[in-house]
Amino acid sequence: MRTDTARPTIAAIAADAGVSVPTVSKVLNGRPDVAPSTRALVEQTILRHGYRRRGGTGRSTSTPRLVELVFHEFGAPWAVEIIRGVEAVAGPARVGVVLSELGGAHRPRQEWLDDVLARRPLGMILVLSDLGAEQRRQLETRSIPFVVVDTAGEQPPGVPTVGSANWNGGLVATRHLLGLGHRRVAVISGPPDVMCSRARIDGYRSALDEAGVGVDTGLIRYGDFFVGGGYHHGLDLLSAPDRPTAIFAGSDFQALGVLRAARELGLRVPEDLSVVGYDDLPVSEWIGPALTTVRQPLLEMAATAARMVLSLAMGETPANLRIDLATELVVRESTAPPPTG
Amino acid sequence: MRTDTARPTIAAIAADAGVSVPTVSKVLNGRPDVAPSTRALVEQTILRHGYRRRGGTGRSTSTPRLVELVFHEFGAPWAVEIIRGVEAVAGPARVGVVLSELGGAHRPRQEWLDDVLARRPLGMILVLSDLGAEQRRQLETRSIPFVVVDTAGEQPPGVPTVGSANWNGGLVATRHLLGLGHRRVAVISGPPDVMCSRARIDGYRSALDEAGVGVDTGLIRYGDFFVGGGYHHGLDLLSAPDRPTAIFAGSDFQALGVLRAARELGLRVPEDLSVVGYDDLPVSEWIGPALTTVRQPLLEMAATAARMVLSLAMGETPANLRIDLATELVVRESTAPPPTG
Repeated sequence: MRTDTARPTIAAIAADAGVSVPTVSKVLNGRPDVAPSTRALVEQTILRHGYRRRGGTGRSTSTPRLVELVFHEFGAPWAVEIIRGVEAVAGPARVGVVLSELGGAHRPRQEWLDDVLARRPLGMILVLSDLGAEQRRQLETRSIPFVVVDTAGEQPPGVPTVGSANWNGGLVATRHLLGLGHRRVAVISGPPDVMCSRARIDGYRSALDEAGVGVDTGLIRYGDFFVGGGYHHGLDLLSAPDRPTAIFAGSDFQALGVLRAARELGLRVPEDLSVVGYDDLPVSEWIGPALTTVRQPLLEMAATAARMVLSLAMGETPANLRIDLATELVVRESTAPPPTG
Repeated sequence: MRTDTARPTIAAIAADAGVSVPTVSKVLNGRPDVAPSTRALVEQTILRHGYRRRGGTGRSTSTPRLVELVFHEFGAPWAVEIIRGVEAVAGPARVGVVLSELGGAHRPRQEWLDDVLARRPLGMILVLSDLGAEQRRQLETRSIPFVVVDTAGEQPPGVPTVGSANWNGGLVATRHLLGLGHRRVAVISGPPDVMCSRARIDGYRSALDEAGVGVDTGLIRYGDFFVGGGYHHGLDLLSAPDRPTAIFAGSDFQALGVLRAARELGLRVPEDLSVVGYDDLPVSEWIGPALTTVRQPLLEMAATAARMVLSLAMGETPANLRIDLATELVVRESTAPPPTG
């Protein structure tokens, strides 16, 4: 029996697609036992009807309360900070955190999403991960909200995002080095197609501009945010005849790579070379020299994203769906005025 | 209607406890809407009947396939290695990994376990976490197998465990230092009530014994496995008149603390002091000096535990339920012969 209300029903979708109600239900729940062609037809019909399953507030109380935390790769040294931030919110709310890796290539992306749909999570937190447009729509029709932590690129309008002030981080790191008297300042950022890399470099350029120091494009490098990127670009920059006296390393791990390159070349930090990191990982204050760095509040970013996604799951509309948390400079031992002469 | 087979049924338990079948089912699934006294009665009756719910092979295919990964605390710097190891096995098996923190005191332990029971996971992997005897029994009656990674203390017989050769790690670290000619060798291990701490120290003692070097109990220290433990004991040991020429630091993070203490006291590593870590975290090869350390195969330990728990969930009986993976010495830059004179 079809009701004639505005809200589309599963029965209406089943009738229109010419399939049974359980088949529509299986597609909604990511179950494997539906032929691909049937499945595509049902997905199209769901979209055409503008159907949205009732979300958090309409769930059965026996469905476990889960959020999905999705990393591009766990390899990132700051992954633990993100996990702790999400757990600090999910734990007291008695919500289980399901962890997965999207870039791991262990399983095809649609298969992975089917498993997510089958778990019927309250929501999803994506860390530097990107879903395709069709996968976003599949989450939307199932009323599974998602929030992105940081961004691997421009997020489409309307995607809730928690980031940090990357541009400002690049600005304050470079201002600090200029303030100490450095004029040949290099920057090693992440991959050029990652928005936060570009924002940090733009902050670097702005600091040089406001100090009236010309930009030498040979001093701008794109690494990978890991140790290797800092090491190789560091060796290259520091072996050049007109080497920089300071390097803004773009991440704490790249700073470790620059420190190693400096050691191998017999350069002392900070006497011969100043180095600034980015992130303020726990290890940064313990290495020698303790690292001057830009603190990125990873734990708070993750906790904010978790609060946002739980709020969206309750059908609430948070006041802000794009939040950038502040970054701040932490001065330690790896920066000093440039060598004289 | 009760059947008269040997296998106890939920109906028999309900009849015996004088409650309804749905009430027994609620207790089995950790649902909150059962009075505590009723719940205790049902748990006792379940135990008395020797009831065990059918596990992995008897599950409905629509129940999401999950394993629980439980840390004492996420703070451990090696947590990411464990997570990656579990995911490397769970990912291809299309099993979701639910992460939680037991020591976090965010929620009471029984409440946490109720949420786990409600999720009906295939199994559980505990990392340095300990369940009470009653909670173990609750998992057993629900046929939820669990495997312990490493051990916070002696596990009761029959608990599947994956560890690493801690005693041997302490032995090879100390042998390496003795082989370089050191005679005053200190050790900083973790808390004395943690079995792996004691095993590493026993390995250290055995190496001294076989070299005919007497044990100076003033050189044996118990830290916390974090940087602070290495730093404070390092300062203390290295400020003494008859200071050691080598320190086996018990963990890479404690080694970072010892390196910092040495810097503050103006001691060069390895010229004035040799330092050996434990774990071989990714950061160890990048710091200056690169750390000589004992590699603990954390990722492989976690992957082994994950395979073991999935195998148990399938009703299989793995050949070995206690596995210690090998540790090995990785020699880098932080060790050298002792200073002469």
